[in-house]
Amino acid sequence: EAKLDPETGITACEISKNRRVVVRQFKKMILIDIRQYYSNADEEMKPTKKGISLSLDQWKVLSENIDNVDEAIKEMS
Amino acid sequence: EAKLDPETGITACEISKNRRVVVRQFKKMILIDIRQYYSNADEEMKPTKKGISLSLDQWKVLSENIDNVDEAIKEMS
Repeated sequence: EAKLDPETGITACEISKNRRVVVRQFKKMILIDIRQYYSNADEEMKPTKKGISLSLDQWKVLSENIDNVDEAIKEMS
Repeated sequence: EAKLDPETGITACEISKNRRVVVRQFKKMILIDIRQYYSNADEEMKPTKKGISLSLDQWKVLSENIDNVDEAIKEMS
């Protein structure tokens, strides 16, 4: 399902109509960007400031803690 | 491991020294906040603007697409 865009990286996941997880490279570092986008006048999706770019290490910690987050959600519900 | 803070929610995961995944409630809606924090003068951790608050639905999509993100990382490496 991943779409490769050499300029903006790989869209690994569309978490909503205007939110994406994009894997991209910046100065030889891989970043996992969880971010909101907007559609410009040319109907191109452009990134907004709303979001966060995780390093590979930070992404690993997040991806290994899905269960902890789900537990916190249950606790909060 | 989750720490309950009635004001700021449950810290479900520390993805780095100053980045957290926090589950909190806002107007009866559960939000999953992936965000950068800073330490203020009183050494309290306070949220910055750098981050994104996911709805429960958006979190579910993200958490179900960990493998897609990991594949994109491999493709990028």
